[in-house]
Amino acid sequence: MTDTASVKAALRAQRIETPSWAFGNSGTRFKVFAQEGVPRNAYEKVDDAATVHRFTGVAPSVAVHIPWDRVDDYAELAKHASDAGIRIGAINPNVFQDDVYRLGSVCNPDPAVRRKALDHLLECVEIGTATGSTILSLWFADGTNYPGQDSIRARQDRLAEALEATYAAMPGGMRMLLEYKLFEPSFYTMDVPDWGTSYAHCLQLGERAQVLVDTGHHAPGTNIEFIVALLRRAGRLGGFHFNSRFYADDDLMVGAADPFQLFRIMHEIVQAGALDPAADVAFMLDQCHNIEPKIPAMIRSVLNVQEATAKALLVDSDALQAAQDNGDVLGANAVLMDAFNTDVRPILAELREEMGIDPDPITAYRRSGHHERLVAERQGGSQAGWGA
Amino acid sequence: MTDTASVKAALRAQRIETPSWAFGNSGTRFKVFAQEGVPRNAYEKVDDAATVHRFTGVAPSVAVHIPWDRVDDYAELAKHASDAGIRIGAINPNVFQDDVYRLGSVCNPDPAVRRKALDHLLECVEIGTATGSTILSLWFADGTNYPGQDSIRARQDRLAEALEATYAAMPGGMRMLLEYKLFEPSFYTMDVPDWGTSYAHCLQLGERAQVLVDTGHHAPGTNIEFIVALLRRAGRLGGFHFNSRFYADDDLMVGAADPFQLFRIMHEIVQAGALDPAADVAFMLDQCHNIEPKIPAMIRSVLNVQEATAKALLVDSDALQAAQDNGDVLGANAVLMDAFNTDVRPILAELREEMGIDPDPITAYRRSGHHERLVAERQGGSQAGWGA
Amino acid sequence: MTDTASVKAALRAQRIETPSWAFGNSGTRFKVFAQEGVPRNAYEKVDDAATVHRFTGVAPSVAVHIPWDRVDDYAELAKHASDAGIRIGAINPNVFQDDVYRLGSVCNPDPAVRRKALDHLLECVEIGTATGSTILSLWFADGTNYPGQDSIRARQDRLAEALEATYAAMPGGMRMLLEYKLFEPSFYTMDVPDWGTSYAHCLQLGERAQVLVDTGHHAPGTNIEFIVALLRRAGRLGGFHFNSRFYADDDLMVGAADPFQLFRIMHEIVQAGALDPAADVAFMLDQCHNIEPKIPAMIRSVLNVQEATAKALLVDSDALQAAQDNGDVLGANAVLMDAFNTDVRPILAELREEMGIDPDPITAYRRSGHHERLVAERQGGSQAGWGA
Amino acid sequence: MTDTASVKAALRAQRIETPSWAFGNSGTRFKVFAQEGVPRNAYEKVDDAATVHRFTGVAPSVAVHIPWDRVDDYAELAKHASDAGIRIGAINPNVFQDDVYRLGSVCNPDPAVRRKALDHLLECVEIGTATGSTILSLWFADGTNYPGQDSIRARQDRLAEALEATYAAMPGGMRMLLEYKLFEPSFYTMDVPDWGTSYAHCLQLGERAQVLVDTGHHAPGTNIEFIVALLRRAGRLGGFHFNSRFYADDDLMVGAADPFQLFRIMHEIVQAGALDPAADVAFMLDQCHNIEPKIPAMIRSVLNVQEATAKALLVDSDALQAAQDNGDVLGANAVLMDAFNTDVRPILAELREEMGIDPDPITAYRRSGHHERLVAERQGGSQAGWGA
Repeated sequence: MTDTASVKAALRAQRIETPSWAFGNSGTRFKVFAQEGVPRNAYEKVDDAATVHRFTGVAPSVAVHIPWDRVDDYAELAKHASDAGIRIGAINPNVFQDDVYRLGSVCNPDPAVRRKALDHLLECVEIGTATGSTILSLWFADGTNYPGQDSIRARQDRLAEALEATYAAMPGGMRMLLEYKLFEPSFYTMDVPDWGTSYAHCLQLGERAQVLVDTGHHAPGTNIEFIVALLRRAGRLGGFHFNSRFYADDDLMVGAADPFQLFRIMHEIVQAGALDPAADVAFMLDQCHNIEPKIPAMIRSVLNVQEATAKALLVDSDALQAAQDNGDVLGANAVLMDAFNTDVRPILAELREEMGIDPDPITAYRRSGHHERLVAERQGGSQAGWGA
Repeated sequence: MTDTASVKAALRAQRIETPSWAFGNSGTRFKVFAQEGVPRNAYEKVDDAATVHRFTGVAPSVAVHIPWDRVDDYAELAKHASDAGIRIGAINPNVFQDDVYRLGSVCNPDPAVRRKALDHLLECVEIGTATGSTILSLWFADGTNYPGQDSIRARQDRLAEALEATYAAMPGGMRMLLEYKLFEPSFYTMDVPDWGTSYAHCLQLGERAQVLVDTGHHAPGTNIEFIVALLRRAGRLGGFHFNSRFYADDDLMVGAADPFQLFRIMHEIVQAGALDPAADVAFMLDQCHNIEPKIPAMIRSVLNVQEATAKALLVDSDALQAAQDNGDVLGANAVLMDAFNTDVRPILAELREEMGIDPDPITAYRRSGHHERLVAERQGGSQAGWGA
Repeated sequence: MTDTASVKAALRAQRIETPSWAFGNSGTRFKVFAQEGVPRNAYEKVDDAATVHRFTGVAPSVAVHIPWDRVDDYAELAKHASDAGIRIGAINPNVFQDDVYRLGSVCNPDPAVRRKALDHLLECVEIGTATGSTILSLWFADGTNYPGQDSIRARQDRLAEALEATYAAMPGGMRMLLEYKLFEPSFYTMDVPDWGTSYAHCLQLGERAQVLVDTGHHAPGTNIEFIVALLRRAGRLGGFHFNSRFYADDDLMVGAADPFQLFRIMHEIVQAGALDPAADVAFMLDQCHNIEPKIPAMIRSVLNVQEATAKALLVDSDALQAAQDNGDVLGANAVLMDAFNTDVRPILAELREEMGIDPDPITAYRRSGHHERLVAERQGGSQAGWGA
Repeated sequence: MTDTASVKAALRAQRIETPSWAFGNSGTRFKVFAQEGVPRNAYEKVDDAATVHRFTGVAPSVAVHIPWDRVDDYAELAKHASDAGIRIGAINPNVFQDDVYRLGSVCNPDPAVRRKALDHLLECVEIGTATGSTILSLWFADGTNYPGQDSIRARQDRLAEALEATYAAMPGGMRMLLEYKLFEPSFYTMDVPDWGTSYAHCLQLGERAQVLVDTGHHAPGTNIEFIVALLRRAGRLGGFHFNSRFYADDDLMVGAADPFQLFRIMHEIVQAGALDPAADVAFMLDQCHNIEPKIPAMIRSVLNVQEATAKALLVDSDALQAAQDNGDVLGANAVLMDAFNTDVRPILAELREEMGIDPDPITAYRRSGHHERLVAERQGGSQAGWGA
C-alpha cells in the first residue's frame, strides 16, 4: 500500500539536474538549426537552468561542460548560480573537440595527446573544487573506426592509466562517474562501450568511481532497468543521463519515446531505495533540443521524469511482492501496470501548489512571456552551441 | 564454370562513381576534423575524383551535391571533368541545410518552404541537363522527431506532390533515384524510411523512377541483398550508395565492416545481369572519411567493390544452381564460399596491368607524391565540407 | 474535441479477434510448458474464445489454424461457434510443420512439395467458404538459412505463382491477407521479410489482397505506425496480428512491452478512419502464453487493445492538427501525450456496465470459477499445442 | 612477419570441441525436422564427434549435456570416447526442461525448485569428475517474460547463492564457465543477459570462474571481439560457444554469417596469446543443424574456425603495431585485411597431409560412405534431440 503523503514527500525531495549544453544550439551532422533567444555564455545557460527550476521546483542544479562553459572565475559562476537559486552540478570534461583528438584522447596512441587530455581532466577536478561540485562526469569519445586501426588492449591500458591519475587527484568528497556508450562518434570500437567495461574500471579505481547510465547509449533491445538494478545492487550506480531514443543516441526528451521504459527504470530506483538524495544517485538530463524550443522542452523533460517517478512510487510493493512470491505472473504484472496506468498529473498539480509553484509549469512558462523577453534581450554575441 | 577472360572483361567494364563530397571534410555531430590538402571548391573535388579514376581505372564519374558544388557555369564544370578524364554523374539536391528546413523540405507543413524545396529540385533537373547527367538522386532528411509532431499521411501527400512535379520536369533521358533511410537526422519518423516506401512512390511516378539503395540506411538485421534481388526483379533497382557500417549510418569505407555482405550483394547483381553498364544500375560510393585521408580511402573503397565483384563473378553458377535444385544446402553454400574464399588480388593485378595502370593502386598513390603536392598547393581558401 | 458518447460508441463497435492456437500449449524451442485446463480440440478452443468474448464483449470471432483445428465438419464447427456467441474468423493455413517443408513450402525447389502446399492453401479457401470466413490469412515460414542455399529470385517467382493460384480460387467475398516476418524460423532469408515484399505481391494479385501487420515481425527500430499509415493510405492495410515484444517475435501479450507504441498504432488507425468495422481492417491477436494462464492472458490482451484504442479516441484531433499546421512541435506532441496519460479505465468500466458485462473482466473471470471447472473437466485426451 | 612453420604449428595444436547435442535433431519452435542416421544415445553422439575429429584432426573432445547424455556409467562413456580417439569435454547441466522450471531454475521464487536445480548442478560436478572433465559450463534459461513478474534483485541474490554452492563443490582442477545470453527463452529479462553480469558473478566466486562467450548471444551491433579482448585482459575469458547468426541466436554454422567477424575474434585471441592450449581458453562449438546434415555441417564448422585462425595467424603483427603506433588508420586496417583476404585453404591442405588426414575433409567424408552406413545402421530406437 502506498499513501499520498509519502508519495508527495518523495516527489518533493526529488532532484533532477539539467545540462547547460542543452540550452545552447545543437543538431545533427547534417545541420544545426539556430534558435532565437539562445544563451551566449555560461552565465546565461545557468540563468536558463534556474528558469527551469523556478517553474518545476525540482531542478536545483546545472551540469557544466568544459570548455563550453569555461569562465575566468568559477567561484563567480557558482555564486551566479546560487544567486539564481540553483547550484553547479556535475563537471563534464570535453576531450573530443580539439583537432589533436582525431584518434582519441586518453587512449590515443600518441603519449603527448594523452598527456594533454589528462591535463584537462585534472583541470576539471580543480574546477569541480572551485565550484563546489561533487561529481566529475567522464565520457570519452575515444575509439576506432576500422578493424586493426589500434590495439583494443593497449587502449584499455592507456584508459586505465588516465583514470587512475584522475581518481588520485580527486578530493575525498568527489565522485567519478564513468559513462559508457555503444557507438558514435567512433564506429568500430568505443573504448567504454558498455556498463561492464565501465564497471570493471570502477572496481579497479575505488569506491568513489561509479557507473553513469545514459539511457540512449545502448544496443537495441538492451534492458536498461536490469542494468540499473544490477549496478545498484553492486553499489556502483552513480547516476543517469536521461534522454530518449527510438534508434540510436537520438537525445530526444526523456520519456518521449518510451514512457513505460522510463517508468520501469524509476521502479527499480524506488525499489532499491535509490530515489532518496542520500543514496547519491544523480538524476541528470542530457538531451538535444534540435528542433523544439529549449527551455520548455527541458521543463517538459523534468515533468516526464517526475511523472514516471510518481507512478513508480504508486506501485503497491506489498501486493507486487506477494504476487511475485506466488509465481503469479499476470497478477504481478497487473500490479505494475495499475501504477503505470494511473494518471498522476492531478497529484503532481497538488504537490506543486503545496510547493508554491504553478500546477501547470508548461502553460505557466508560456504565459510568463519569458521566452519573448529572452529573444528580445539576447541579441548580438554568438550563440552557445556544442562548439562553445 | 567461369573463365578468367570473361571475368576480366566484366571487371574492365565495371563503373563505380565517387562522390564529390567525400573529398571534403566530414565528421560527426561531435567534431569535424579538418585534413590537409582538402579541396576548396567543386573543381578541386572533380580533380580528386579524377585522381581516383587514374589510379583505379574504373571510377570514371563523380556525383555532385548542390549547393555544395554550386558553380556559375555547369557546362564549364562538365568540361573540367571531361578534361580530367571523367564526367559528372548523379546530381544530388540538398534540401536539408537551410534554416527554413527545420521541420522538413518537401514535406514541411508550411507551403512556402515546400515551394522553395521544389524549386531547388527543379533547379537540379536543369543542372543535370547542363552537365549531361542522367541521374537525379533524391534523398530527403524530412521526418519528425516526436510522436504527434506532424501527420504521417499528410507528409506523404506532400512528398508525392513534389515528386510528381519533379518527375514531370525531367527530360526523357533522366532517371530519378529515390533513396530511403531508416533514421537520422530525424529520430521518430523519416518520410522515406525503407525501400517499400520508395518503391511505392516510384510505382506512382513512372518507369524512370527507381529505388536507390544506400547500404548504411537499414535497420539492424536487414538482408540487403534480398532487397537488391527483389528490386531488380521488379525493374526498380536504380543504383547504390555504397558504404559500410557496424551500427547506424556510419558511412565507413565500403567493405570495411562486412566484406561478405558486399560480396553477397554483388552476387545478386551478377546473377541478375545487373553488372552490365547497359543494365543502368548505378554503383555509387557515399562515404565519410572522418579520420582517414580521403583520396586513398576512396581508392581503397573502389578496390573493395572491385574485389567483391571479382569474387561474385567467380561463383560457379551452374554448380550453384545444381546444388540449389537438389536441395543440397551445404553444397550450395560451399559453392558460394569457394568464390568468397578465393584471393582475387592476383587476377585484379593482372587486369590493371592489361589496362595500363599500376597493379597496386594504393602503393602507387602513396609513392606518387600526389598527396604531398596537394597539401602544398591547397593552402588558403576555405576547405570544402558538408556545409560548402 | 472528443465527446464521451462517441468515444464509447466507437469502443462498443470495436472487434478484436482471438486466435484458437493461443489457447493451446506453446513455448520456445527449449521447452513447451504444459498447463492445466488447456483445450484438447478445436471445439474446446472455440469455447475458450467464446469465454473471452463473454467477459470482454468485444472479441466475437476466433481465428483458426489448419491443420491444428482440423475437424470433419467445418459447418458444424461454425455452428458450435455461433451457439457459443461467436463466429469463425480468419482461416490460417499451416505449411510449415510437415517433414517435406524442410526447405520451404510454396517456395520449395521441389515442385511436388510446392504442389502439396498449394493444395493445402486451396483446401483452406474451401474451409473458409464452409465456415463463413471472409479472410484467408497467409504466413509462410519459407526462407533459407545459408547464403547460396537457394535463389532469392526463383523463390519469389514460385511464391508469386502460388499466390496467384490461390487468389484465383477465392470467392468474391474473401480477402487474402499476406503476412511478413523478418526472420524465424528461417535465419538468412525469409521469402516475405517485410511489408514492401508483401505489398508488391498484393499489388500484382488484385484489390482483395492486402498486407497483414504482425507487430512482432519487424527489425529493431522499425516504426510500425508509419507502416500502418502508409498501407492504409494505399488501401492495402488488411489487418493486424497483435502481440508485443522486447527482442524478436516474442509473442508476449499485446501492450505488455510498449503500451505507448500500441497507442501510436491505434492513433494512426483512428486518424485514418480504420477503426470502423466497415473499414475492413482485421484486429487479430496472435500470441503465445508460454508461462501465464491462457484465458486470463487473452482477456488482458483484449483489454490492452481496448485501452489503447480508448486513448487514441481521446486525442483532440483539432488541437493536434492546429499544432501540426503551426509547426508547434511541443504543442502537437503534448496533445498526443495528454490522451496517452489519461486513465481510461473508468470510461471502459462504464461502457462495460452499459453493455451488461462486468466492469472488471479480469477479476470477474477469476471469481467465476471457470478456470477451476476447466481444469476439472479437461482431463485425459491430449492437450492442444502447435503441433495439433 | 609470420613464417609458415610457426603458423602450421599453431594450427596443429589448435583444439576445437564439438557438442554432443548438435548431432541430434534440433529445430525451431515451429518444427523439428528429423534427419536420417541421427544418433540415438550418448554413445552414438560420441561416435559422431569422433568421426568429426577423424576427418579434421583438431576436434579431440566432445561436450555433453545432462540429462540429454545421461548414462548409467560415466566412466564407461569416458572410456568409449577414449577408445574412439577423443575425450569428454565440458559438462553442460540442463535446468530448463523440467516442468517445474517454468519460472526459472536457480532463480525461481520457489526454494524447492531452486534446491532441485542446485542438486542437478552438483550432480554435474560429480559427472565431470567421473568423466575427467575440467569444465562445468553453465547456462541458465532463467528470466522473466513480463515487467514486474519477479524481482530482478532477488533473482540475482538467488543466482549468486547457487553459483557459490556449486563453485564450492568443484574440485580444484575444474573451472566454471558462466555463459550469458541477451534473450530467449525469456523475453523480458534474462538473469545473465550480458558479459558484465557474468563477469561480476565470476569476480565474486573466485579465479576458477570465468566468462563463456557464445557468439550468438548478443544485442545487434555488439562488438564481440572487444569483449574477448577485455575478458582476456582481465584473465576471465573462459571460452567460446561458436556459432553464427544473422538475427538472434540463430545457431547457424560458425563463420557462415560473418566470416570477417570470426576472423577478428580469432585475431584478438592470437594477439592475446590465447590460442595456445596452455592458455585454457576453450574453443567449443554450439550449433543447430536444423536443415543440413549434421556431421558434414560440423566438419565444415571446424574448418571455418580453422580457416579464420589461419588468417589471424598470418597477420603481420609487427607491421600492424607499427601502423597503429603511427596513427596510420588505412595502413593498419590494410595489414589486417591482407591477412583476411589471403586464401588459406592451400596451407591447411598441406597441414592436413602432414597430419596424415585427407586435405579436403568435406569431400573425404562424402566419399567415405559413412553417412550411408549410419542411415542403414541407425534404424529403430528414438532419435536424439533436445529433449533426450
